Amino acid sequence: MTGEFSLIDRFFKQRQAQRKDVQLGIGDDCAIVKVPEQVRLAISTDTMVSGTHFLPDANPAWVAHKALASNLSDLASMGATPAWCSLALTLPETDTEWLSQFCDAFFELASYYNIQLIGGDTTRGPLSITLTVHGFVPEDQVLTRQGAKVGDWIYVTGTLGDSKAGLELILSGEQMVHPSGAELEKRHYLSSPRVLAGQALLKLASSAIDISDGLAADVQHILECSGVGASIDVSCLPVSKELLQYLGDDIVKAQQYALTSGEEYELCFTVSEGNKGSLESALSHCDTPLTCIGQIRPQGQWELHDKGKPLAWNLTGYDHFRREK
Amino acid sequence: MTGEFSLIDRFFKQRQAQRKDVQLGIGDDCAIVKVPEQVRLAISTDTMVSGTHFLPDANPAWVAHKALASNLSDLASMGATPAWCSLALTLPETDTEWLSQFCDAFFELASYYNIQLIGGDTTRGPLSITLTVHGFVPEDQVLTRQGAKVGDWIYVTGTLGDSKAGLELILSGEQMVHPSGAELEKRHYLSSPRVLAGQALLKLASSAIDISDGLAADVQHILECSGVGASIDVSCLPVSKELLQYLGDDIVKAQQYALTSGEEYELCFTVSEGNKGSLESALSHCDTPLTCIGQIRPQGQWELHDKGKPLAWNLTGYDHFRREK
Repeated sequence: MTGEFSLIDRFFKQRQAQRKDVQLGIGDDCAIVKVPEQVRLAISTDTMVSGTHFLPDANPAWVAHKALASNLSDLASMGATPAWCSLALTLPETDTEWLSQFCDAFFELASYYNIQLIGGDTTRGPLSITLTVHGFVPEDQVLTRQGAKVGDWIYVTGTLGDSKAGLELILSGEQMVHPSGAELEKRHYLSSPRVLAGQALLKLASSAIDISDGLAADVQHILECSGVGASIDVSCLPVSKELLQYLGDDIVKAQQYALTSGEEYELCFTVSEGNKGSLESALSHCDTPLTCIGQIRPQGQWELHDKGKPLAWNLTGYDHFRREK
Repeated sequence: MTGEFSLIDRFFKQRQAQRKDVQLGIGDDCAIVKVPEQVRLAISTDTMVSGTHFLPDANPAWVAHKALASNLSDLASMGATPAWCSLALTLPETDTEWLSQFCDAFFELASYYNIQLIGGDTTRGPLSITLTVHGFVPEDQVLTRQGAKVGDWIYVTGTLGDSKAGLELILSGEQMVHPSGAELEKRHYLSSPRVLAGQALLKLASSAIDISDGLAADVQHILECSGVGASIDVSCLPVSKELLQYLGDDIVKAQQYALTSGEEYELCFTVSEGNKGSLESALSHCDTPLTCIGQIRPQGQWELHDKGKPLAWNLTGYDHFRREK
């Protein structure tokens, strides 16, 4: 087993381009970074634990992608521009093949989003990955879960439900036998964080969140933080042809998957009537599929409907401390 | 079992004073903070895993203290002023009694150092704690592992060796039967990060590190980063009377403990001849015990001696990926 110091040297040092705002990167007790003037720092932390968030034998490259993408998605939901990250990696043993695949994928995604690894910790123990990401937001623009107003339109990016279907296929071991299996497995692990879309939303959206707990639960977070209600038309929910195929073309089931599927890492946000046109134009520039799924209502109102016909679905969000897996 | 959302609400929200530079704290996808002008940000991440860094049945208050203190020690070694932290807590189950004791101790220490918890993640899995801490350093002053010069004096704060002795007593279960057991156990878990001392060192020291891997290994980090060598007089190493008692007054063994004991969270630093007087005066103001243990030599020279008599001790540092526990 290799020592911790050489592990850091071999796998993490000098693997990436040096950002100009990083005065001191990996290798001292702290990193030292410079924050530009007139920006605020957005900071987020997420943990992925083997057995809870991914299977122990999952492809290490996919695990790396999912860990970093889920954190970048948090930055995206605040409209932040990625800057730096710290990686805390706990490993049962020094598996150089695993580490090599993990690091290749990690640095590839990090490089794409120009986010520099500035430090972290490697420890021995049950496999888990904790990332803390840092990004910049303009000091006069804040995009949070607060700010949705009655009459605002509710949008989501991409398609929803695929991650839940992918997870089911992985857990059942049927991802290779089902016609949509390989694609849905990828959707579970290899989401693209909506970083550019989030930045475009900064001036245009009234509130935003990323879909990690499931759309229904995440919309509730916006409603609670903003003190409003919502009406959602399930017939508008964007679902993929792979999800429909997986569910035997049961559209109601697909809509329920879209409402409850966690770890989607798409954005859900609200936009005023006046900003609707600019929004659709701005997001088409960054090639982000966009769907209007409902509207903000006064506080206390929560309505799911199918083209106007009310639905009384009982939906449960995605909560690591609740689910049994 | 309680859900993740109510867990965060119950144990982590509204437990602390709000810093003015925290625009948005716990509760959104990211925290938003403001970095003062003319400072750099120092960032550090450390993980503590149950079974590797503490025993599963360890006092949760002590675990919390050790986790935060070890991270604050990283800030101290760069002379940084603590500002914010993120906590990633992985728990096998929602044990409210454990959480309550953990949080009480965590917020007590955080409050003392005016460091605000701004976010994090709670997940289910084998018990571990990852903290990322942020602090401020003046833009024109940097204290790192580089910068030690030939002729500089080598200092350490506090006493050394106690943490190793405490760990041995904990692992053997004899902390309650040995006369110094209770005290050494506390030294292992309840170190005081040298935050004020670190800040005082900013203008005075040429290099600094905190002792987490063991003095001999940590001095080597300074020597490698600075391109110098060192001579250390083991007869000067500060050891406590509790350590001597534990080792049956074997001073040679105590010196070897002082050189190899990890997780001490004392500072080791170098000071030029010209700054020696100011240094000793500055650190006496912040009530920090201080000992000069040797001097920086040209690159390639590494000498341990006892009042001039050379020693050929073979010392191994503290490395989580090497030690068998």
